[in-house]
Amino acid sequence: MPTLLQRLVFQVGPVPNERAFVLSSVSTDGHYISLRPFVKPRNASEEAFPFEWVFAGTNQNVVVNQKSEAIVTQDFNNWFDSNVYLNLPNTHRGEINTTWENWESGCIAETGSVFPAGRELDGVPFFELWQPLDSTRDELVVSTPQNEKSASSAKSIVFKTTEGSGFDGLVVVTGRWAQGFLSKQNDGTINGMNFIRTLETGNSNVVQTLLQYGRDADKFPRKFDGIKLGDVVEANGLKWEVIESYL
Amino acid sequence: MPTLLQRLVFQVGPVPNERAFVLSSVSTDGHYISLRPFVKPRNASEEAFPFEWVFAGTNQNVVVNQKSEAIVTQDFNNWFDSNVYLNLPNTHRGEINTTWENWESGCIAETGSVFPAGRELDGVPFFELWQPLDSTRDELVVSTPQNEKSASSAKSIVFKTTEGSGFDGLVVVTGRWAQGFLSKQNDGTINGMNFIRTLETGNSNVVQTLLQYGRDADKFPRKFDGIKLGDVVEANGLKWEVIESYL
Repeated sequence: MPTLLQRLVFQVGPVPNERAFVLSSVSTDGHYISLRPFVKPRNASEEAFPFEWVFAGTNQNVVVNQKSEAIVTQDFNNWFDSNVYLNLPNTHRGEINTTWENWESGCIAETGSVFPAGRELDGVPFFELWQPLDSTRDELVVSTPQNEKSASSAKSIVFKTTEGSGFDGLVVVTGRWAQGFLSKQNDGTINGMNFIRTLETGNSNVVQTLLQYGRDADKFPRKFDGIKLGDVVEANGLKWEVIESYL
Repeated sequence: MPTLLQRLVFQVGPVPNERAFVLSSVSTDGHYISLRPFVKPRNASEEAFPFEWVFAGTNQNVVVNQKSEAIVTQDFNNWFDSNVYLNLPNTHRGEINTTWENWESGCIAETGSVFPAGRELDGVPFFELWQPLDSTRDELVVSTPQNEKSASSAKSIVFKTTEGSGFDGLVVVTGRWAQGFLSKQNDGTINGMNFIRTLETGNSNVVQTLLQYGRDADKFPRKFDGIKLGDVVEANGLKWEVIESYL
């Protein structure tokens, strides 16, 4: 079953807040992307690159361990990380160790530390709170025991750029919601990054673009019906392989 | 426009959590109730009274001040407070001063302090995070710019016990969601308290009981169509006056 999580709280230091509309998509097989656009960019730098952060990976990039009924650890070695791509100073490199605790309310609390000055120096602890959504719905509908049957019926499709294309990219479709990144190899500037968030609305499966960023954003796949594992789809000249498809 | 808020986070001390399924209903005219049932009561005491807290009041019991575009203060002198009703030791008495800040994400952060040992001693700061819901929906649907037209069309009805009935009670209906308290005067035990949470489902306006507590819970009004301001409705012998009705 794929999951779609909305972040409710981000906290580093004493004061919690949430300035972004963060959705994290996790496919049935564990491929993932977390897209973190600012709701209201505050300055020229945020206007030019209106994302707090984006990261993504396949299930080879994360190790998940169930520690107890309510607690899971996830250790991320992301395939794509916007901070790493841009080689931003004072940002974390390498594995990120996180702990996820299910609250009785249904939300999931994530804690961990990042090491922007390197592992040998003090880490910076963070807290994030996540709300599971019913990804089969075209609104933000909280996942509850009442709609879990609907939520568990969600489709899960993942597209990955093919070797030799000059790009790295992943699109994760969970239910009606798709998120993707596409980064140009050997670029390392904001001009090399592309992101998309789409939503299938209504019964006719019209794919609505909620967010699109980057000069190569027309190279994302945008049709998600009749997709089979192993298919190769082409979008404006770029080839994507379907590495997962549960319909 | 009435509002229905779901609490996402409750924090006293260093660690946030959420053990309750809290909804706060606020009518168009500002009458309110906050019902805070535990999701999983943990001991005999919590089984007997499975609520973290319940409080309610009319718009005479709260003073609201807009401090800036994103910040509002609310000073509560609750009409009903389950801790006060039970005369629980080490719980707050009197006015509670709170500050509400709209986050860019759409959630609302509430901060304040309570004084369980009295005003002359140190207060205990708390943090609560609230998610506005579209109360016209029969699921937990997040209120967003996309559905604000629907949310703003919600009906708002308030019932109040009549004088001389031997009970204090208030039922606040916001959209499809109703919450109420009914407390027996001069009782002061858990046997004197009654609470209800109902939800109108489907097009036929079937009122589904989500939560019911107390031996007099059959005295709550449970029909919310065709209600007019000034009506007096009777429920198993108890009379309720309609003090607000926007349909």
